[in-house]
Amino acid sequence: MPNHQGSLDRVFHALADPSRRGIVERLARGPASVSELARPLDMSLPAVLQHLQVLESSGLVVSEKAGRVRTCRVEPAVLRAAESWLGAQRTAWERCLDRLDEVLTAGPADLAAGGEDQP
Amino acid sequence: MPNHQGSLDRVFHALADPSRRGIVERLARGPASVSELARPLDMSLPAVLQHLQVLESSGLVVSEKAGRVRTCRVEPAVLRAAESWLGAQRTAWERCLDRLDEVLTAGPADLAAGGEDQP
Repeated sequence: MPNHQGSLDRVFHALADPSRRGIVERLARGPASVSELARPLDMSLPAVLQHLQVLESSGLVVSEKAGRVRTCRVEPAVLRAAESWLGAQRTAWERCLDRLDEVLTAGPADLAAGGEDQP
Repeated sequence: MPNHQGSLDRVFHALADPSRRGIVERLARGPASVSELARPLDMSLPAVLQHLQVLESSGLVVSEKAGRVRTCRVEPAVLRAAESWLGAQRTAWERCLDRLDEVLTAGPADLAAGGEDQP
C-alpha cells in the first residue's frame, strides 16, 4: 500500500513539530481562520502558512477560502488512520504478552501435573 | 511540558519513516534480535542500526545486549502516549461536532416554539 504508507509518512512528519501539533490542537476545538491560528503563535505569518501547508499536504488539515478569509479545520479520518496504526501495534504487543503469560502460567502447572502423575 | 513535547517530536519523527514503522510492526509481534530485524529489510546493517538508533532515542524501542546478541522490543507506553494525543484531538473534534449538531437541532425547534408562541 504505497499510497497509505506515503500518507502515514506525511502525517507523522507533520505531527513531529510542536507548532503544527499546536495548530491541530486548536483546530480540534473548532474551525479557525488563518489569522486566528497565527494570533497565539510567536512566529511570522509566512511561517504559519508554511506549517499549514505541511498539515494540508498530510491531509490532517483542510481549508476553504470564502472571500478574503481562509478557514481551516482538522480532518478526523486522517487523525483516525494514524491512531489506528498505533493502536494496531499496541494491540499486537498486548496479544504477544498475553501469549507469553499463557505459556508461563500453563508451563509450571503442566510440569507439576506431569510430575505428580495423577490419573 | 517541554519534555513531553520533545518526546512526542521524537516519536512522530521516528514514525515518519516506512522502514522504522516496519521495524515497530515486526517488534509489536514480539522481541527480535538486530539480525532478525535486518533480514527482511533491503538495506545494509549500518542503515538498520541507524533506524534503530532513531527508534531508541524516541523511546519507542528498547534493546538489551546479552553476550553478542542485542534483543529489541517495543515500549508500549510510548506507543500509547502518541495514540492518546491523537485520540484526544479526535475526541475534541467529535465534541465540537456534537455541539454544532445540538445548536443546529435545537435552533429551528426553539424558533418554531417562539413563533407559535405556545403557552
